[in-house]
Amino acid sequence: MSVSLRLERNSPAALYQQIADQFKDQISNNRLPAGARLPTIRRLANDLGVTRVTVQNAYDELRADGWIEATTGRGTFVSERVNSRATLRSASQPVTPDAVISDMLQINEIVGLRSLASASPDPHLFPADEFWGVLAELRDDAATMAMYGASQGAPALRVALADLLRERAVDAAPDEILVTAGVTQGLALVTQALCRPGDVVLVEQPTYVGFLHTLKAQGVHAVAVPLDEEGPQVDALERLAAQHRPRYFYTIPTFQNPTGVTQSPARRRALLAVALRYGFLVVEDDLYACVAYDQSPPPPLFAEDNSASVVYLSSFSKSLMPGLRIGYMVAPAPLHSKLLSLRRAHDLCSPTLLQYALARFLAGGGLKKHLRRVLPLYRERRDAYLAAMQHHMPAGVEWTRPSGGYCSWITLPQRRAFSSLYQMAIQHGWVFTPGDVFLADPSAHYHLRICFGNQSPTVIRSGVEVLSRLIRTGLNETDRTHSETGDWAPLV
Amino acid sequence: MSVSLRLERNSPAALYQQIADQFKDQISNNRLPAGARLPTIRRLANDLGVTRVTVQNAYDELRADGWIEATTGRGTFVSERVNSRATLRSASQPVTPDAVISDMLQINEIVGLRSLASASPDPHLFPADEFWGVLAELRDDAATMAMYGASQGAPALRVALADLLRERAVDAAPDEILVTAGVTQGLALVTQALCRPGDVVLVEQPTYVGFLHTLKAQGVHAVAVPLDEEGPQVDALERLAAQHRPRYFYTIPTFQNPTGVTQSPARRRALLAVALRYGFLVVEDDLYACVAYDQSPPPPLFAEDNSASVVYLSSFSKSLMPGLRIGYMVAPAPLHSKLLSLRRAHDLCSPTLLQYALARFLAGGGLKKHLRRVLPLYRERRDAYLAAMQHHMPAGVEWTRPSGGYCSWITLPQRRAFSSLYQMAIQHGWVFTPGDVFLADPSAHYHLRICFGNQSPTVIRSGVEVLSRLIRTGLNETDRTHSETGDWAPLV
Repeated sequence: MSVSLRLERNSPAALYQQIADQFKDQISNNRLPAGARLPTIRRLANDLGVTRVTVQNAYDELRADGWIEATTGRGTFVSERVNSRATLRSASQPVTPDAVISDMLQINEIVGLRSLASASPDPHLFPADEFWGVLAELRDDAATMAMYGASQGAPALRVALADLLRERAVDAAPDEILVTAGVTQGLALVTQALCRPGDVVLVEQPTYVGFLHTLKAQGVHAVAVPLDEEGPQVDALERLAAQHRPRYFYTIPTFQNPTGVTQSPARRRALLAVALRYGFLVVEDDLYACVAYDQSPPPPLFAEDNSASVVYLSSFSKSLMPGLRIGYMVAPAPLHSKLLSLRRAHDLCSPTLLQYALARFLAGGGLKKHLRRVLPLYRERRDAYLAAMQHHMPAGVEWTRPSGGYCSWITLPQRRAFSSLYQMAIQHGWVFTPGDVFLADPSAHYHLRICFGNQSPTVIRSGVEVLSRLIRTGLNETDRTHSETGDWAPLV
Repeated sequence: MSVSLRLERNSPAALYQQIADQFKDQISNNRLPAGARLPTIRRLANDLGVTRVTVQNAYDELRADGWIEATTGRGTFVSERVNSRATLRSASQPVTPDAVISDMLQINEIVGLRSLASASPDPHLFPADEFWGVLAELRDDAATMAMYGASQGAPALRVALADLLRERAVDAAPDEILVTAGVTQGLALVTQALCRPGDVVLVEQPTYVGFLHTLKAQGVHAVAVPLDEEGPQVDALERLAAQHRPRYFYTIPTFQNPTGVTQSPARRRALLAVALRYGFLVVEDDLYACVAYDQSPPPPLFAEDNSASVVYLSSFSKSLMPGLRIGYMVAPAPLHSKLLSLRRAHDLCSPTLLQYALARFLAGGGLKKHLRRVLPLYRERRDAYLAAMQHHMPAGVEWTRPSGGYCSWITLPQRRAFSSLYQMAIQHGWVFTPGDVFLADPSAHYHLRICFGNQSPTVIRSGVEVLSRLIRTGLNETDRTHSETGDWAPLV
C-alpha cells in the first residue's frame, strides 16, 4: 500500500493533525478502502521525517474516531466501518426534511465521510474539563439531581439565563423564562399553542429545516417569505400577511440558518411594524447570535418590541453543546402560561442534573470563557471557507458571506445538471446539505448549505475544492447539453 | 423554646434520623414556627443522652433540606422558607390536574411540608456513587457526549434496554426500541400519532393524572373504564369500545398508579380479546413493574399479544431516578416510524450524556444491584403504611393493598364532609394527592392517593395518624349534620 502524504511545516495545523486529516481524505474518497493496511508508525515517521510520537498521535485520533483499527501483531487497517456511509438515509431515499434531520443528528458517528452538513459547533472544542468539574461538584446534591424539577426549569438555571439575556438586551425576570428541550421543543410548543391543523405560519425562504418538519408534523402550512441579504423582504411579508392571516412569523434575524444572513436594523424595524399592523406574533430564534466573528450583532427583535408581539427563543446547541438539549424562551404572559401547561403535558420537565450543571457553568463564567477561546478558531474556519470558495468556484455560482454562525448558502444557476450532486459528493466522501429541504416553496435554482464549524481549515479547503470540481463538471455538461440541443432538430 | 423528642432505641431507624424526622414533624405542624430557635447541639445531646455527632448529623440533614438555618454565634433557627408551603398552587387554586402535577414535580423542594403526594422513589436512596462513577468515565468520550444523537436513542442504550426488556418477557431488538423523555413523552407522541382533537381514548378510572392532562392538551376525550381489584372491568370496556370507537385504551396493568392494583392473568387475556375484537390498540404503561415487593408480577400485556395490538412503554422514573427523564417504548412497525418522525419534530433527541450514562449503568448491572438494595426498604414502608391504616382509620374507609409500586388509593364513604380535607392536611403540614385529578368521570366518593415511597416508616405512621384524625372529624361532623338535618324542619 503506497500512501502519499504532504506536510506543510509552516501551517498553523499541527503535524499530527495534517497526517490524520490526509488519511481521512484518502479513506473517504476510497483511495484507502476498508481493510487497507496503513504503514507502520516507524516507517511513516521515517518517510515523513517526523517523530514517531507525531504519527502515533495521528493514528490515535483516527482510531478514536473509528476510521482505523489496530490488531496486535498484524498491523493497522482501515476500519470496515467506513462502509457505513450506506447508513445515510438521505443518500438512498428521497431527500426529505425528515431523512436529512435524521442523518444530520448522527453525522458525526458516520465513519468514512467528511461532513460539512451539520450547523453545529465542533465537539472537539467543547470545554470538557470545566463541564465535568461542575458535574462532579453536583454529586453532593445527588438527591435533588435524581428528582423531577419544575416544568418551567430549575430556578438556579433561570436566574443564570436572566443574566445571559440581559447581555442580549432582553429584559426578562427568571419567572418569565421557560426552559425547553432545545429551541426545537420551544417551536413545537409555540405551534401547538397557537395553531390548529390547516393554519398558516410565515417562514423565511430558506429557513431551518427542523422547523419545516415541526410544522408538517402538526399539519400547519408554511408560506415562504423570500430572504435577501438584509433579511426577509418586507413587501412580500406584508402581502402574504394580508393574504394568509398567519398565526405567526418565524425568523432567525441574526446569522440565519441556512444562509448566515443578518437582518439590518432598518429591516428589523420594518418587520416589527408589519407584525403590529397585521396583528401576528413574531417568533424569534436567536440561537446563533453569540457566535459572532466580526462585530457585535444588532439587538434581537424582542428588545426592539414594545407591544408584546415577539416570542424569543434561544439555546446552547450552537454556543456550547447540542447534546445538552437545553434551550429557553420568553413569551408574552398569557402565552407563557399556555406553553408551560403544554410542556407539562408533553414531558413534564428537563433533566435536573443537566439544568443544574449548566446553571453552575454559566454562573462561573464558563460560557464567556469558552467563547473567547473558540470564536477565533471558528473565524479562521469561516475565512478559510470564503477564501477557498473565491479561489475554486466557477463563475455563475453565488454564496453568502456570514459574519457569524456556521452556515453559508450556495446558489447554482439552475437545477437540472445538479440533481445528483448530493449523491456524487457522498461518493467522493463529502456530505453537505441539499438546499431543497430548507425551502417552503420550490426554487428555480439548485441550492446547498455548507457548514464550516465542524472542520479544520485544511479539511474545509479540501472539501470546497472537491465540491467546486463536481459543480464545474455539472456546469460544463450543461453547456454541452445546451449547445447539443441547439444543433439537434426535434424528432416530432 | 421547649422541644420534646422521644427516641426509640430498638427502632431500625438511626437515632439521628429519628431526631430529624421529629423536628420536621414539629416544624410542619407549626409547633416550631419559622424563626424559632433550636437547642444547641451540646444541650440536646445531653437531654437525649446521645452523642453530639448524632445531633450534628440530624441538624446537618435538616439544614441540607432547607428546614433550619445556622447563624454563626447566634444559633440555629427554623428557616423562613417553611412558609413556602404557600407556593403550592393546588392549595389556593382549584385542584386541577395541571396545578397538581406542577406541585408534585416540585414537592421535594417545598420546605415545611411532609409529602405523601408524589409517586416517585426516595431520592436519598438513589445510587449516587455508582452513577457519578459512570459519569466520570464518560469524560474520555466528551466529544460524543457534547453532540446530538439519533432521535431513536443512543445505540448502546437501546442494546441495554433490549436486555432489560427480555427479563420482562418482551422480545424487542434494539432497532425496535424508541427512547423517549419519560413515559409521558411516549404517551404524548402516541396520542399525536393516533388521535385528532375530538377523538376518544379509553382510560382506567382512576388513572395517571399526567395522562389526563396530556389528552386534554391535545383536545382528546378520556372515557373512563372502572377498575376493580382485578383490573379494568371487561364488560364496561367492551360496552364503551362499541359505543365510542376509541383510538386506544391506556392501561397500567401492574402496580397501577394511583391504586396499586395489578391485573389478574385472566383479566389480561380478556382485555386483549376485547381490543382485538374491536380493533383498538392497547397502550401499556409498565413503569412500576420492577418495584415488586411480594412476588414477580405477571408478564406485560405486550408479551401475551400475538397481533401487534399493544404499544409498550416504560421508564426509569420509578426504578431509578425521575430526574433522568429517560423512558422507552416498543410499538408496531408503522406506528414506530411515525413516532420517530414526531419525536424528531418535537425535540430532536434525548440528551446524549444521560443516555450513555444510563447505558453503562445498566450494562454494569447497576439497576439490579440497586433494586436488590432498595426493594426491602420500600417493602418496609409499604408494610408500615398498611399497618398504620389498619390501626388508625375509622370504619367506612377503604384502601388498596399494593404488592408493588408506591401508591395506595383511599376511598371515603361520601364527598361532602371532605371538601376541605386537602387544605386541612396542608395546614397540619401534610400533603397527599386529592383523588379527583385521577378521574375522567366524577365519583360519588371522596378519594385520595397516598404514596409511601418517599418517607421513612416513622414518618408514614405519623402521617397516617394525622390523616385518620382529620377523616374521623369529617365523619363525625357528617353524622352530626345528618342527625341535625333530621331534627330540623325546612324553613321554606
